Amino acid sequence: MDDPVLLTGAGGRVGQAILRDLADDYDWRLLDREPLPREKIPESVDADAVYVADVTDDEAVAEAVDGVGAIIHLAGDPRPEAPWDSVLRNNIDGTQTVFEAAVEADVDKVAFASSNHAVGAFETDERTPDMYRPHDDYRLDGTELPRPSNLYGVSKATGETLGRYYHDHYDLSVVCVRIGNLTRGHPPWNYERGQAMWLSYRDCARLFDCCLTADYGYEIVYGISDNERKYYDISRAREVLGYEPVDNSKEFEDHPKNQ
Amino acid sequence: MDDPVLLTGAGGRVGQAILRDLADDYDWRLLDREPLPREKIPESVDADAVYVADVTDDEAVAEAVDGVGAIIHLAGDPRPEAPWDSVLRNNIDGTQTVFEAAVEADVDKVAFASSNHAVGAFETDERTPDMYRPHDDYRLDGTELPRPSNLYGVSKATGETLGRYYHDHYDLSVVCVRIGNLTRGHPPWNYERGQAMWLSYRDCARLFDCCLTADYGYEIVYGISDNERKYYDISRAREVLGYEPVDNSKEFEDHPKNQ
Repeated sequence: MDDPVLLTGAGGRVGQAILRDLADDYDWRLLDREPLPREKIPESVDADAVYVADVTDDEAVAEAVDGVGAIIHLAGDPRPEAPWDSVLRNNIDGTQTVFEAAVEADVDKVAFASSNHAVGAFETDERTPDMYRPHDDYRLDGTELPRPSNLYGVSKATGETLGRYYHDHYDLSVVCVRIGNLTRGHPPWNYERGQAMWLSYRDCARLFDCCLTADYGYEIVYGISDNERKYYDISRAREVLGYEPVDNSKEFEDHPKNQ
Repeated sequence: MDDPVLLTGAGGRVGQAILRDLADDYDWRLLDREPLPREKIPESVDADAVYVADVTDDEAVAEAVDGVGAIIHLAGDPRPEAPWDSVLRNNIDGTQTVFEAAVEADVDKVAFASSNHAVGAFETDERTPDMYRPHDDYRLDGTELPRPSNLYGVSKATGETLGRYYHDHYDLSVVCVRIGNLTRGHPPWNYERGQAMWLSYRDCARLFDCCLTADYGYEIVYGISDNERKYYDISRAREVLGYEPVDNSKEFEDHPKNQ
């Protein structure tokens, strides 16, 4: 990807995980609703490539998108408990604004940050906690209909459907990444669910790197590390995107904080 | 269903098809954004059971929903070409308002008018027109992920996902009906697609009658007549809802206007 890549929500955790490992690999443009503190902007990124804008602002988004080859769209209200009015505006309307700007500017690819919350209600009382454990073979693979655990999850499922429409109608390449539990350094301690959907910082960067380099049409993939505990099938991410995770929450199983 | 039934969008085509055959079968409350002309209100419905309100108005919707046992939610911008701002507000936000009011008022069932446009992009150049013809066995059955043909279709798919959330989280019974091509008296002439997804007025009434009387958790069904041409599988509507369509677009095949 020689053209610039726009990263929306650059100041958030996912954005920072991506920039930590890929700062020098792409010609980044960063967009965030809040001015980014200096330490969140890689040295390789010039000040004029940093945009302060709300993703629901058509004109500001169009300006940031003009001339880019790809977009990683992370911006939105990240709170699972976010109220409807916020996810309607920031996540649903904001994502439509980004897709619309992408097709207007003839962008090649959009990687959209979806979430495990788009399918959180598959975790029923009957299935848990077994589904979080290695012996259990229950798997979601991205072909299932959404079952959101909250209105935030509804907004993420809607972003996926918007992506499907913009792919089918405009031939935009779209990949939706249902991001698991992103934590830095180690999986969440004493939290089987979080360990089953752990995504390490470096695997997060590897996965979005694949989203920028691989060829695809429309994909929904799960974004987790190569965990022994899991109920998300990552074979689609491996096959289509070439994702090769290097971390596994099992490696931390015997850690004193995990007892 | 002894409790009143709220019909939103009562003045539209689907609402009128339902009322034509079921006016005397339920204790109706009618809601529409515009004052309903006298001829659109059945004689059995009292004036104080007719509400003029926008479905995005939380308070007005809560008032109309108070005390009802079920809701048939049809209100929204019905235009396939409707712009994003309109479907965002009227269809997505409006549907969330209705579901929220339903759980607040402890309603049992919500039947949501989804649309063939939620899956219109399955009709690719490679599949059409064969998929509209009797010899072709391509079928959608409601388990497939949405592929909207327009932003209106995106809004309908989002309504389905909202229904899934409100069912999973609040145990509300929800059925989403992907309505085909509703025309009165006869299928569209010289329009294979419309004949394949024809829904006669009386079958429309029969189907929503089933939505009010059957027991279900969460369902997505296709709303078409028993057409010989078809690419929607209606077996789920038959099995779970007890839907028994009586019309078939083939019966009109030899009509002079169809040559």
